Amino acid sequence: MTDLLLRNARPWTPGEPLAITDIAITNGRIATPAGDAAQVIDLDGAIVLPGFVDAHCHLDKTMFGGPWTPNTGGRTLEGRIRNGEGRREELGLPNPDYAANLLSAMVSHGTTHVRSHIDIDPEVGLGGVEAVREAAARLAGKVDVELVAFPQGGLLTRPGTAELLEAALKDGVEVIGGLDPAGFDRDPAGQLDLVFGLAERYGAKIDVHLHDQGLLGAWEYELIIQRTKATGLAGRVTISHAYAMGGLEPDHQRRIAEGLRDAGVAMITCAVGGAPVIPVRLMDEVGARLAVGNDGIRDLWTPYGDGDLLRKVNQVAFRDRLVADEEIELALAAGTHGGASVLGLEGYGLAIGCNADLVAVDADAPAEAVVSVPQRKLVVKGGNVVAHNGTIIG
Amino acid sequence: MTDLLLRNARPWTPGEPLAITDIAITNGRIATPAGDAAQVIDLDGAIVLPGFVDAHCHLDKTMFGGPWTPNTGGRTLEGRIRNGEGRREELGLPNPDYAANLLSAMVSHGTTHVRSHIDIDPEVGLGGVEAVREAAARLAGKVDVELVAFPQGGLLTRPGTAELLEAALKDGVEVIGGLDPAGFDRDPAGQLDLVFGLAERYGAKIDVHLHDQGLLGAWEYELIIQRTKATGLAGRVTISHAYAMGGLEPDHQRRIAEGLRDAGVAMITCAVGGAPVIPVRLMDEVGARLAVGNDGIRDLWTPYGDGDLLRKVNQVAFRDRLVADEEIELALAAGTHGGASVLGLEGYGLAIGCNADLVAVDADAPAEAVVSVPQRKLVVKGGNVVAHNGTIIG
Repeated sequence: MTDLLLRNARPWTPGEPLAITDIAITNGRIATPAGDAAQVIDLDGAIVLPGFVDAHCHLDKTMFGGPWTPNTGGRTLEGRIRNGEGRREELGLPNPDYAANLLSAMVSHGTTHVRSHIDIDPEVGLGGVEAVREAAARLAGKVDVELVAFPQGGLLTRPGTAELLEAALKDGVEVIGGLDPAGFDRDPAGQLDLVFGLAERYGAKIDVHLHDQGLLGAWEYELIIQRTKATGLAGRVTISHAYAMGGLEPDHQRRIAEGLRDAGVAMITCAVGGAPVIPVRLMDEVGARLAVGNDGIRDLWTPYGDGDLLRKVNQVAFRDRLVADEEIELALAAGTHGGASVLGLEGYGLAIGCNADLVAVDADAPAEAVVSVPQRKLVVKGGNVVAHNGTIIG
Repeated sequence: MTDLLLRNARPWTPGEPLAITDIAITNGRIATPAGDAAQVIDLDGAIVLPGFVDAHCHLDKTMFGGPWTPNTGGRTLEGRIRNGEGRREELGLPNPDYAANLLSAMVSHGTTHVRSHIDIDPEVGLGGVEAVREAAARLAGKVDVELVAFPQGGLLTRPGTAELLEAALKDGVEVIGGLDPAGFDRDPAGQLDLVFGLAERYGAKIDVHLHDQGLLGAWEYELIIQRTKATGLAGRVTISHAYAMGGLEPDHQRRIAEGLRDAGVAMITCAVGGAPVIPVRLMDEVGARLAVGNDGIRDLWTPYGDGDLLRKVNQVAFRDRLVADEEIELALAAGTHGGASVLGLEGYGLAIGCNADLVAVDADAPAEAVVSVPQRKLVVKGGNVVAHNGTIIG
């Protein structure tokens, strides 16, 4: 017996044409239709995508759904870090209510999986982990949240942080983060050795924030590639932001992309500010993995953001001048399958046997969905309808 | 007697704090409240902005509201130009229905004034002028449209185009356009002399598309500044896109911005693709004029765009890393007062005596309106309500 039957759907698999079909869901998984269906929804030709994966956000920092808070962080990395820490207490951050507000918005927009960095430093300790876990528990069954123990205030330069990161990993946090090993921490080999050492010891994945620009940033990519090869952590290491990548000379970009592919290192773009985005077509052509995240949303770092990953995919595609349908679909693939690969999700996709995590949108073509960012018609997580016409259910 | 009374409004004037007040409208203008009001609308504290000015779009090219048309233009300027001309006939462009669809969307988003470039070349002749005039006539009273006679296919390099541009100006088209005098037409002095000559002869304004990057683009800014000073066309000359500007060294940027200010030349940014946007704070600090436009929308050049100028203002602000409220308001000022200055609008703004062209949005602060891009609560043009909760009336 089928639990949920989605009639007249057009499921999307990257690179393949769409066709009308029915999607049957049984026991939370996509299944072969069998017998009567307990629930039937006619999608009337809507495109069905696997659930969006927000591979990079900061749930602990957000003030989403709270009053407007004018930003006082300025434009330097150091100024933002100081602002972020300095005003946390005044604004009651981290706050599980705000984090839950944002997760709810994400669900309403079709995001089924999230990786959130959590600031860890001697002042806040593991408070952010607790707050975001509480928020994620409230949204249990609607969205899965993976955490990164993130040394936002520095690692080597901030005594006490390394011990707290280790405590977070012991406590089950899945990913260890890093922050500009050169530009901020000033000892790239030292920071990366520490991060990779912790990852090996605790079986954690790695996700390093890398804002450093130009040849400095590119050189750090090489350090990360090198260490990933040396440690056998292929497939478990990600460079977030990678602002330098978009500005490198084409042959240098290609060399880096091939290095990423060979070492099994992924990149995540959030299409932030003025830096050119990571070149989507090159990453695909070379076979290097790329994912998309919303980054900070309505927090002390940035006043922007709405939690809609499809809109972020739109920005990535627009910024990278993707115009042909098959190019635009590469950005959509980064926001879905690319993110799933970075998070190491099993059973992701729309094939028979996959987890029934999906989102339906009205559009002629997948590329049109990226361009027009329509309201989400239906969001299904683990086989249950969790949002309908842009509104979360329950 | 007051025709329309907007109660509990918070009108925005750049740089000034908001306060609750009533806005009275009589005979299409903002007036002192007097006697009873024929119509009263309670805005419940909504922020009221002057109507958005889309200072750069391409109504003749759009397929807005039509079926999804995969883009085949590629990424080079020349490829896009060829694609744009080559597929016009097949797709029935220019098309007054599509142009009217787009104008309607713009009205629903609060745009009250539009400057549209119109492709003019020996194949299409003045067909675009006719089509867009027809569309504008259908939207008469809801939005004002100014046209630019635009040599999209080249000017000196495309025999017959100069004569057609002149014919357009004779026919009442308000602005004469140009296109990369160096990078595309290969004779910068020749093209600019021709454009400035036509502007002087017909009392037209000037708006030059300038995609050329780096020092080549910057050098062309200087040519335009020079000619503007020499011809006494101060206040009537605009450089659109100006991709080079955002990438120049800071002292060079400042020198250019000061030159623009001294000569009365404006710039328009559409926050397109990968090039850094025109630096908003510098332009304001120096006193140079900046406006915002949506550029192409759903056409053979680009599949992107929705006609919402507030969302474009959001992108300009995000891309330029404007974070403090007063910085974000500079982008909003560019999308309103900046555009009004470029179009040379008289009676623009929210002061007593100004034309009653305005838009109301629910937000705590003007900066929040830019960040959250809320549905427009009310749009008034010439004293009449033309859109309500995101939907055009009539």
